[in-house]
Amino acid sequence: MIPPELKKDYSLKWERMQEFMQKECIDGCLLTIDVNLLYTTGKIYDGYFYLPQQGEPWFFIRKPNGWSGEHIVYIRKPEQLPEVFTANRLEMPESLLLEADELSYNEYVRLTNIFNPGKKENATAMLRRMREIKTPYEIAQIRKCARLHSKTYSEIKGCFRSGMTDIELQYEIERIMRKNGSLGVFRTFGKNMEIFMGSILAGAENGAAPSPFDFALGGKGLDASIPLGANGTVLKPGMSVMIDMAGNFTPYMTDMTRTFSVGKLAEPAYRAHQVSIEIHQTVMNIAKPGISCAELYNIAAEIVERNNLSAYFMGSKQQAKFVGHGIGLQINELPVLTPRSKEVLQPDMVFALEPKFVIPDTGAVGIENSYLVTGNGVEKLTVFPEEIIEF
Amino acid sequence: MIPPELKKDYSLKWERMQEFMQKECIDGCLLTIDVNLLYTTGKIYDGYFYLPQQGEPWFFIRKPNGWSGEHIVYIRKPEQLPEVFTANRLEMPESLLLEADELSYNEYVRLTNIFNPGKKENATAMLRRMREIKTPYEIAQIRKCARLHSKTYSEIKGCFRSGMTDIELQYEIERIMRKNGSLGVFRTFGKNMEIFMGSILAGAENGAAPSPFDFALGGKGLDASIPLGANGTVLKPGMSVMIDMAGNFTPYMTDMTRTFSVGKLAEPAYRAHQVSIEIHQTVMNIAKPGISCAELYNIAAEIVERNNLSAYFMGSKQQAKFVGHGIGLQINELPVLTPRSKEVLQPDMVFALEPKFVIPDTGAVGIENSYLVTGNGVEKLTVFPEEIIEF
Repeated sequence: MIPPELKKDYSLKWERMQEFMQKECIDGCLLTIDVNLLYTTGKIYDGYFYLPQQGEPWFFIRKPNGWSGEHIVYIRKPEQLPEVFTANRLEMPESLLLEADELSYNEYVRLTNIFNPGKKENATAMLRRMREIKTPYEIAQIRKCARLHSKTYSEIKGCFRSGMTDIELQYEIERIMRKNGSLGVFRTFGKNMEIFMGSILAGAENGAAPSPFDFALGGKGLDASIPLGANGTVLKPGMSVMIDMAGNFTPYMTDMTRTFSVGKLAEPAYRAHQVSIEIHQTVMNIAKPGISCAELYNIAAEIVERNNLSAYFMGSKQQAKFVGHGIGLQINELPVLTPRSKEVLQPDMVFALEPKFVIPDTGAVGIENSYLVTGNGVEKLTVFPEEIIEF
Repeated sequence: MIPPELKKDYSLKWERMQEFMQKECIDGCLLTIDVNLLYTTGKIYDGYFYLPQQGEPWFFIRKPNGWSGEHIVYIRKPEQLPEVFTANRLEMPESLLLEADELSYNEYVRLTNIFNPGKKENATAMLRRMREIKTPYEIAQIRKCARLHSKTYSEIKGCFRSGMTDIELQYEIERIMRKNGSLGVFRTFGKNMEIFMGSILAGAENGAAPSPFDFALGGKGLDASIPLGANGTVLKPGMSVMIDMAGNFTPYMTDMTRTFSVGKLAEPAYRAHQVSIEIHQTVMNIAKPGISCAELYNIAAEIVERNNLSAYFMGSKQQAKFVGHGIGLQINELPVLTPRSKEVLQPDMVFALEPKFVIPDTGAVGIENSYLVTGNGVEKLTVFPEEIIEF
């Protein structure tokens, strides 16, 4: 099931889950949601991953057929699991972790009816916490993704043609992303959190347009069914064009934003953009294991306030209350950099920092980078020029 | 909230839901999942749609701000709903429809704790049933989508270059789709059902590769994290290239497959393809309101058997047990054309028919069209040449 060369890496994850289960007196963990299967097995399949508190994990698979190895059992439906447990001398868990924030209500109820555990705990919450700290293989995947992400950004300027719309620019960039290996599917956490490969915001009007989604900025989108990002704005001189296309070149994503301009922008846009770069530099100097995420937010907010830009920070009509977030298999992982966060940075966390401004008459400016927390600081992963790039 | 010209169309849906609620003695229906908000309001927002058994619906919105109109109430969190109900003299429901197959377990429990209804029913099941029968506006959207879908297929041949891979062909088609107005996001129903804009299957090996997803055919995909469709196969003479890229040019989707070839194919591939076309013609002649979906499946299966193609029908290594499915806001709606379906066709249903074969040494062949059920038959929506098209 797991390639031999990755067995050690996956074992690291299973051991950390088992430590948690031992501490919390939980007998087993049953997973079936895409990102959680990916996290624990490196594959998406139709079936379940089961980790007992002690010992090796089990893989219960509906289809496809053809995989073989230790602890792989084919089933037709989860109702067979009790007999499978008995046949394999696996104890039925008295207390069980289930994906309470991701399974549908009916699926959750179905699984609890099968296992009838005395105690149910939330596997989603546990895994989101575990997934914050990346393993060596995960970090290698993220590095690869960041490299291809930067390469893609180096090809954006060549996509521009005078008179085009934001969405015309976007689909040329989407093509370059796919050419460079983008896997397409973009994974997010949370109800209705939908985005297609990323977002482009051009000009003041769409830059300030609110969206119902919990992303940093909004945009009206092409249709009321996908109210986010590019809306068909014609790119005109004096407009900023904020490009926040996702890095999904491996299952582990990176997040990166750069601001482009059609001709020259008004002076306030350049000043605000410089403040975004200054926030990145300050955070890079301060961030290290032990520093709190709230402090990083507050440092950013102080720099913003000192520059009298609070009214434009993270949106104008609607302002997001975070300046960064963890990234991994989903684009919005933990930790979140908010003023009230209780979290502190730890080695091998990966987070995106995205101080952005929406400037009247110009549009969105600022940059976003992905950072890896090292033993004594942070390392920038998305290396690419940070000044406003004139098309 | 609803544009005046569409009020009548949305009222049709609300009235049908209310008829159901009256019949089942249910007091109210609370919705918050993307496709259900789209279906009932034409918009995705952060909040809730509430329909009482009698009277007009209510819109409870968290953000964005700025909409106004009758029955729009801004809230910060769903826990405020009881006081909002009281303030608006709206009775708290004793029995309540909630999206039991779509809400996460924790969100469902949160809402039931707020409303504490004596009886809970499944809004997902009701809505999937309602959504089978399209309204005039929905049919107009589907027609528009089908038109742009066919236009896109007419541009596929121009995307081909000798020596390219399946995924290189795919991203050129994706670009054409976006140019023609594809909204990008592709909505499916069900746990882990992920697909990115559609699927291309080239050659015998990837054509037969099983996938864990419940789509008609499989394909290995680019990565274990998205095990479906194109896998980097180099397009070579004698290979069939089945192109099943989604029509998401409006929020209402159409489904359409055509088979292309690199040079000439072996004779069995043309014969099987012709059988797929024959199934379409037979179904078009027979399908009308009142005919059962099981009968349509069985007619297809009989034609397949008579032609000795059962071993290749709907896959070879892994065979799908359906030959068609409803389409709408999601690509896999009701009804499903399976041998055991209890459903009959009704006017204004829209379904895709996709008899496909995976032929040894050649790959996948066959076509898929989207059909509208009319008063006395069916109308083909995805009009485009159906023979195998040589690149």
